[in-house]
Amino acid sequence: MLTSLFNNNPDSDFTVYLIHSSLSSGEIKEIASFIGVFGQQFEAITIEAKQFDTSPTHMHYTKEMYYRLLAYQFLPTDLDKVLYLDPDILVINSIKELYNTNIDDYLFAAASHDVLKATEINKIRFFSIEMEAYYNTGVLLMNLVKIRQEINEEDILTFIHKYQHLLILPDQDVINGLYSSRILGIDEKVYNYDARYYTLYKLTSKNLWDMDQVIFNTVILHFCGKKKPWNKSYSGEFHSLYKHYEKQTDELITNHLVGH
Amino acid sequence: MLTSLFNNNPDSDFTVYLIHSSLSSGEIKEIASFIGVFGQQFEAITIEAKQFDTSPTHMHYTKEMYYRLLAYQFLPTDLDKVLYLDPDILVINSIKELYNTNIDDYLFAAASHDVLKATEINKIRFFSIEMEAYYNTGVLLMNLVKIRQEINEEDILTFIHKYQHLLILPDQDVINGLYSSRILGIDEKVYNYDARYYTLYKLTSKNLWDMDQVIFNTVILHFCGKKKPWNKSYSGEFHSLYKHYEKQTDELITNHLVGH
Repeated sequence: MLTSLFNNNPDSDFTVYLIHSSLSSGEIKEIASFIGVFGQQFEAITIEAKQFDTSPTHMHYTKEMYYRLLAYQFLPTDLDKVLYLDPDILVINSIKELYNTNIDDYLFAAASHDVLKATEINKIRFFSIEMEAYYNTGVLLMNLVKIRQEINEEDILTFIHKYQHLLILPDQDVINGLYSSRILGIDEKVYNYDARYYTLYKLTSKNLWDMDQVIFNTVILHFCGKKKPWNKSYSGEFHSLYKHYEKQTDELITNHLVGH
Repeated sequence: MLTSLFNNNPDSDFTVYLIHSSLSSGEIKEIASFIGVFGQQFEAITIEAKQFDTSPTHMHYTKEMYYRLLAYQFLPTDLDKVLYLDPDILVINSIKELYNTNIDDYLFAAASHDVLKATEINKIRFFSIEMEAYYNTGVLLMNLVKIRQEINEEDILTFIHKYQHLLILPDQDVINGLYSSRILGIDEKVYNYDARYYTLYKLTSKNLWDMDQVIFNTVILHFCGKKKPWNKSYSGEFHSLYKHYEKQTDELITNHLVGH
């Protein structure tokens, strides 16, 4: 994700914030060195997330997933906007337009995976909650100024306890359940392209969103779901592209960091 | 092809020779400028190929295909080795080892597409000729010293006239028909990977040659056959990777050449 982000945005300056509670100082150092190779800034934020000790954390859902919800408490107070990105992502074009999207009147910007009719499915699941859309929070632009004014930690914890038996993707469900109407929708085909649905995007766009369009105009490819492109059993239209970035990453590490 | 060759061989110096008879000086200039962006050398060799006027040129087979056969006559006399590359290729790793392959005792090095059992098929087609293997000449390392000593233009023209009713891929058929025993075989999975047969390579190698292996160890991906990755209707495992290089090429042209 970072290699693709930096390589496809050569004219941008980034500061990467990493919120964690269990990485070793050695691991943090490795990440810092890697980001340093690209000449970009890095800040690790170590936190004790006691407030989430009673939240549902099962299977591959970890406590760290909740950090996105309260990131505003841990990020520098002078930061007014930040883009959260999942790690199972490739950023294949300029991210500038997304980052510069005007979200003054919103808490977040995110894409709804309508190609899956996710909205319908999740409207049924959360039958008691009014939701205009169900957003994927793997790509989440945050208006930190408004979030600091409007988001209340108590609301979040109350929601989690009330709906924990229904939460499938806990933090995504919370953001949708509580703040759906305060999210600016952005084009999923551009900013949160679900790599599983190449054929579906192509068909539903009447062949407009073909491979050419994806490579030249999609900004964020998201490898959603359990099958990940770094696993042996993976297959899919973007497998070769993912592996290409993995190789670039390996070469950078070998050329710049091994032996240092 | 050129973008991938240069980008994946940043430490190598290349001279690209282009043998042609119909490109305009404007087109030649464009190619020269593009290669110049990478700091590499370029030489266009314009020839009048009268000797091939009576050879079979039909459909997408052009006179230019025969230039490969007699390239040794047009290339600089002090050049002792050259690598011919088809344009429907991506060079995704270092080409150094291929170029440095010892072919002192051979005329050529090339890969046989055994995954297709091409040998069997072509043995039947050329029933009257003894052939040990049928090589794909889209990637052809040439020992120009030996070729100048051993290859005879008369033999080639005689062969073409004798077998023209059987020639499907004219120049490849000629090289195989006349010089098959003088070709050093190289690994097709490394140096001439037919992009159509990802699944077949994977299965016949007991899953060893999977996507990981291709991206990290295959040097040359060859988009053989009539379906090409620059066409709208293409689909395949390496479509996204091809388009990635196409975009890199477009960006280089836009950033360095437009308006100059």
